[in-house]
Amino acid sequence: MRHISMEHDACPIARSLDVVGDWWTLLIIREAFMGVRRFSDFQRHLGMARNILSTRLKHLTEAGLLEQQPASDGSAYREYSLTQKGRDLLPVLVALRQWGERYSFAPGELYSRLVDRETGHDLQPLIPRTADGRSAGDVDLDVLQAA
Amino acid sequence: MRHISMEHDACPIARSLDVVGDWWTLLIIREAFMGVRRFSDFQRHLGMARNILSTRLKHLTEAGLLEQQPASDGSAYREYSLTQKGRDLLPVLVALRQWGERYSFAPGELYSRLVDRETGHDLQPLIPRTADGRSAGDVDLDVLQAA
Repeated sequence: MRHISMEHDACPIARSLDVVGDWWTLLIIREAFMGVRRFSDFQRHLGMARNILSTRLKHLTEAGLLEQQPASDGSAYREYSLTQKGRDLLPVLVALRQWGERYSFAPGELYSRLVDRETGHDLQPLIPRTADGRSAGDVDLDVLQAA
Repeated sequence: MRHISMEHDACPIARSLDVVGDWWTLLIIREAFMGVRRFSDFQRHLGMARNILSTRLKHLTEAGLLEQQPASDGSAYREYSLTQKGRDLLPVLVALRQWGERYSFAPGELYSRLVDRETGHDLQPLIPRTADGRSAGDVDLDVLQAA
């Protein structure tokens, strides 16, 4: 597939996808949220080819979503951790997760759950709302193009 | 890149990405939210190669996110519209958009805005919350693996 960069598109969705719009990228971010920090652990959890993982980690670091640090145990390994920019993808991951919970599992099929550690409860459904609190799915929306 | 299907992964994020985890897919859904219904209009708005667009529309229809209908003007064209499953991707698009607004534009650079048509106001920031209303970004979360 030809890849047209959307780096200069005025739509924030297009620009976001330019950074995170592939499968592996969001799964790497998911793993980082779950506390994975080392190349070998990303590799083992995701079953990715090393060269692809290496390229994606480099891309995510250059884009400012991950940062490299010396290993927390003093070993020679380097570790990757989420920056604020990376952590701010939590709503994207939660939205994808909740859509998947609703549509991608058969009735009764078990899925992994994301819960509040303190209470064990699921998160609230993520519902886009207008400034005055109505569900955005129930109102007319407009996209105002940048000049 | 090798494509390993995540169709059987127990993580709802992985399964969602298996359906919508490519760039063009979410942009087609974005266009559909903006009222685009015809092949030629998707093609023109997205600047996609016709064969890629055709493959993606077929995939989205088979996956139940779009449905085909006779053209609303009685012509021979067929139109694509979002199903409920497709419309339920709104939180994903809003989350991507808000992240892009925050991180993908230079200060002062103009971006397209998604607004409530009635008031002209932006939507509220989408914040994942625990069942008792705390911001999920501020608490410890666990992923409970399916058995």
